[in-house]
Amino acid sequence: MPLRFPTTAETKDYKFNHTMLRVKDPKASLHFYTEILGMDLIDEHDGGDFKLFFLAYANSPSANPVRSQREAILELTWNKGTENDSNFKYHNGNDEPQGFGHTCISVPDLEEACARFEKLGVEFKKRPQDGKMKTIAFIYDPDKYWVEIIPQKK
Amino acid sequence: MPLRFPTTAETKDYKFNHTMLRVKDPKASLHFYTEILGMDLIDEHDGGDFKLFFLAYANSPSANPVRSQREAILELTWNKGTENDSNFKYHNGNDEPQGFGHTCISVPDLEEACARFEKLGVEFKKRPQDGKMKTIAFIYDPDKYWVEIIPQKK
Repeated sequence: MPLRFPTTAETKDYKFNHTMLRVKDPKASLHFYTEILGMDLIDEHDGGDFKLFFLAYANSPSANPVRSQREAILELTWNKGTENDSNFKYHNGNDEPQGFGHTCISVPDLEEACARFEKLGVEFKKRPQDGKMKTIAFIYDPDKYWVEIIPQKK
Repeated sequence: MPLRFPTTAETKDYKFNHTMLRVKDPKASLHFYTEILGMDLIDEHDGGDFKLFFLAYANSPSANPVRSQREAILELTWNKGTENDSNFKYHNGNDEPQGFGHTCISVPDLEEACARFEKLGVEFKKRPQDGKMKTIAFIYDPDKYWVEIIPQKK
């Protein structure tokens, strides 16, 4: 049994709103997160020399027109111009020095999802059949951040 | 108006399940994420030389006894023994080389939340009154990952 800590009155309405990743090329990232992973671009903010993109699933149980009321948002930060520098790359947290590991999308059918990713030309780090853990896959996003893919159990 | 892409039939039930961060000292991290940020330890997995902790808000609209059906989970990976090496530290993604930026918790009342964090000895990167953006704060987790704190708008 997992440990459970009591929810305190002061924090009971806190929400895990988003995770932010920097991306080099917003066109590539928006293609990946919307057309391949199926997220919805729910908001964007142009800050002049940078631009923020907020992505989330339309069918999320926390879906809400007010962004701060939602959960499970992916915020992408684009520092303009990086996409034109062929030597520029972001650090994915899994090469040294390590830190951040991955984001994870759960899908109704892992085999079907992976077959679709293959068809769409997605780069795999680990297909379900590779290695010991047959029920998970890892794909790369355009910046080589790892995205874990797991099946939704009933 | 934000751009919106149509949700495809193939991806409509995908969920943004979790974000994974490596942590050096699980005692410090569990204290921070459960007692200070109020998350619930919903699951854990001992992998021998590593251990995984899964945290989420009990009041999340996606709360579900099946972990893969939830959204907005924070997974912490502890590689056992790192906590005993005084020179060991994880990379927070904001120092060079950059990549991952932060996680973000939205709270009903920013001022109240920050006053509570102060009382609990949380280290701030940015208090609401610092700099131009008066409606956000950044605090450090025990590994110096940044956690943005924003108010929930009505």
